[in-house]
Amino acid sequence: MTVPSWVSDAVFYQIFPDRFANGDPDNDPPNTEPWGSPPTIWNFQGGDLRGIIQNLDYLVDLGINAIYLNPIFTSPSNHRYNTSNYYEIDPKLGSMQDFLALLNTAHQNQIKIILDGVFNHCGRGFFAFADTLENGERSPYKDWFHIHKFPLDAYGPGNAENYLGWWGFKSLPKFNTSNPQVRNYILDIARYWIDQGIDGWRLDVPGEIDDDDFWAEFRQVVKSANREAYLVGEIWTADPRWANDSHFDGLMNYPLKNALVDCFKGKNTVSQLAGRINSLLTLYPHENTLGMYNPLGSHDTERIYTLLDQSLEKVKLAFLFLFAYPGAPAIYYGDEIGLEGHKDPECRKAFHWDSTQWKGDLRPWIQTLIENRKTNPSLRYGEFKQLLAEDHKKVFAFSRTYEGQSLLVLLNFSETAQEILVPVSGLGWDSDHEVRSILDNKLLFMDNHHIVVNLPPLGGAWIR
Amino acid sequence: MTVPSWVSDAVFYQIFPDRFANGDPDNDPPNTEPWGSPPTIWNFQGGDLRGIIQNLDYLVDLGINAIYLNPIFTSPSNHRYNTSNYYEIDPKLGSMQDFLALLNTAHQNQIKIILDGVFNHCGRGFFAFADTLENGERSPYKDWFHIHKFPLDAYGPGNAENYLGWWGFKSLPKFNTSNPQVRNYILDIARYWIDQGIDGWRLDVPGEIDDDDFWAEFRQVVKSANREAYLVGEIWTADPRWANDSHFDGLMNYPLKNALVDCFKGKNTVSQLAGRINSLLTLYPHENTLGMYNPLGSHDTERIYTLLDQSLEKVKLAFLFLFAYPGAPAIYYGDEIGLEGHKDPECRKAFHWDSTQWKGDLRPWIQTLIENRKTNPSLRYGEFKQLLAEDHKKVFAFSRTYEGQSLLVLLNFSETAQEILVPVSGLGWDSDHEVRSILDNKLLFMDNHHIVVNLPPLGGAWIR
Repeated sequence: MTVPSWVSDAVFYQIFPDRFANGDPDNDPPNTEPWGSPPTIWNFQGGDLRGIIQNLDYLVDLGINAIYLNPIFTSPSNHRYNTSNYYEIDPKLGSMQDFLALLNTAHQNQIKIILDGVFNHCGRGFFAFADTLENGERSPYKDWFHIHKFPLDAYGPGNAENYLGWWGFKSLPKFNTSNPQVRNYILDIARYWIDQGIDGWRLDVPGEIDDDDFWAEFRQVVKSANREAYLVGEIWTADPRWANDSHFDGLMNYPLKNALVDCFKGKNTVSQLAGRINSLLTLYPHENTLGMYNPLGSHDTERIYTLLDQSLEKVKLAFLFLFAYPGAPAIYYGDEIGLEGHKDPECRKAFHWDSTQWKGDLRPWIQTLIENRKTNPSLRYGEFKQLLAEDHKKVFAFSRTYEGQSLLVLLNFSETAQEILVPVSGLGWDSDHEVRSILDNKLLFMDNHHIVVNLPPLGGAWIR
Repeated sequence: MTVPSWVSDAVFYQIFPDRFANGDPDNDPPNTEPWGSPPTIWNFQGGDLRGIIQNLDYLVDLGINAIYLNPIFTSPSNHRYNTSNYYEIDPKLGSMQDFLALLNTAHQNQIKIILDGVFNHCGRGFFAFADTLENGERSPYKDWFHIHKFPLDAYGPGNAENYLGWWGFKSLPKFNTSNPQVRNYILDIARYWIDQGIDGWRLDVPGEIDDDDFWAEFRQVVKSANREAYLVGEIWTADPRWANDSHFDGLMNYPLKNALVDCFKGKNTVSQLAGRINSLLTLYPHENTLGMYNPLGSHDTERIYTLLDQSLEKVKLAFLFLFAYPGAPAIYYGDEIGLEGHKDPECRKAFHWDSTQWKGDLRPWIQTLIENRKTNPSLRYGEFKQLLAEDHKKVFAFSRTYEGQSLLVLLNFSETAQEILVPVSGLGWDSDHEVRSILDNKLLFMDNHHIVVNLPPLGGAWIR
């Protein structure tokens, strides 16, 4: 197994590059809209790589140590999932020099960077597709795609008919990954950017490339270029096919987030949450569980603050859970300051650099969670054990135990305060163990078998 | 003035990359046709950069010391004048590593390399044009072109109507070079490849960018990156606007070739040839005359062997003239072995590597001319002076004089042998000067004022 060890120590921060920070107005496209304009599927707001470099202190201060960057290669869209050139930094985001400077600065600050690998489909401007449009039957690249008939009509209205596009979109021609030339081309891209110094790839819709050999080869190429490179697949369902030593180290753990949110929303009881978590934890090899990328939101989902009814308490409790859970917790840029937004394009708002707009004490709360996760190895590597799942009180508790050190995690999903009795007999705490709630630094009373904890409405605790 | 000194010492060899040599079958497009297939406007025959590297010995043996490469950047055509990506070696020709290896090997052999700069227009696959097709009015790049109306209809039949294409071609969108972003983009390309080590640019249709400021800036950027870089413009007419210290060092001297061919064809008398040559020599600053790129043919013209009635004598005489003329003589690949072909695509035949197909003693003749040009500085730097232009005998003679050394050049355009009396009184040859015809190594008799030379039909001589 080759899941890189740094991943279970990682705290990810996901950046949608056009919307995090504008560090170089010189590369703004001429039709750039003012920072903070309502996000649309078309508009650009000027975010760029220099903006990330200039605000790396902000990220260091937050405590994250890994960045997942949404696509940064040349593309005609603000999301850049329709790649024109896999070997070029989009000039609207900066230059190769800017990117290498970002990598270098990040690495000097012990921050890893992974990129978004969009290899199922390209954009219409990708040279091989443009060649196919240019030359039709005569194109040397026509077998790089799934062509039914010429001419292709790539720019007229309607869905793709004469060739395969992702979800029928003309703008997203699907690669023919069974063509060895296409495979080699993609593998070269993967290797090239690893060689430039990136720390891994997040693979976009990898399930659409329904080919285990391809992904095994992909993994082999990446890991042989850098055995510490991380591979995480955008797989939305819980599916052990994709997280193992011939596919990805981890997956974007949306099923975890969904289980948590369903409990907040009352769609699931706490014991149902417990069941779903148990199922997720047993579904994958342990090492891959520690290699999961655990998000509360992304560029593809409603913002967690919006989803959880704009309740700061719920968002804080959700993060308390996330940072105590096995795998790498991931913050979608702005979620730490309570940025709002429904599904895309609204969830891709420009970051607020005016801190008066930051919601409550959410950001310091997350800083505290990160600090404590860093100083408590049990939260990162500890064995997960469910302790409580009380449906009537809506209380959930589990422990993480590593090298004899245990940490208890308690969550109150109810809107009322709850006093709960937590069994601690299995934790090896003797009578002189000083039991402490570490987030508010309170001492707790323990008898031989239990501790009593008072949880505020929608409150939680980390206890050790 | 900054015409690089190496240019008057240069002997160029122009290579159309798909047709010179196939050094790496692995990069052949899948629809590659067999080497030597009839050339069409569509087909590929597998020539590549490794092919040039592997045959550099052939070029060293021929004696050339500079290469002009037709376009090598990614493009959907075999000629590559519709660029998709100005920063990438076309994968059908090889990789960036192959290109750097070619540059390195060439430089080790004292061979310069200039590239074809196609900056008036791009191809439809160029990212900024593809972005404009993708986003229409919303594209940040729409002002990079000359758009009349959206949508563009770039791939339907007919000429370009909603945007400006070179000569109306939809496939060749013309750049809006008055847009500062476009200017910067082009200047960056120019600088980038100079920084990679190329020795200059041949500029494609530069007259279509009717903007002296642009070219002055272009020159400044290139020369400040490498003051020894050579700039040669594809200007088909005799026009002093383009060869000077704010434009190009030299031009592709088609007017010289045309004057010579018209004399061979009997369309001009020898004295008319003399007049045209005199006009060309007085039209430009002397330094730019020495900076001219003097071709007998190119990818855009009928092959010289075909044009001169498949007469080896005429071709040999034409080269005898060319290698004695001020400026850099240029051999279009294959012209040295008598490759045939009418205008393109026929003039872009695959090179014959089977030497039994080489015509007569043309190649050794050219080797001899090159050797003698190298050992006679007067042929490279000498002052040009017409000595004879006898219409009845169809004989033309001139001298080249440098640092007191003179060399006479005699040409007999007639189909019969001619005995001619050449006045040599101005050459400073005293009575004990041993007059020698250097190409056949014969001693000649001189009286006080003249030498007598017997020229065979369509023959010539270099005498010193």
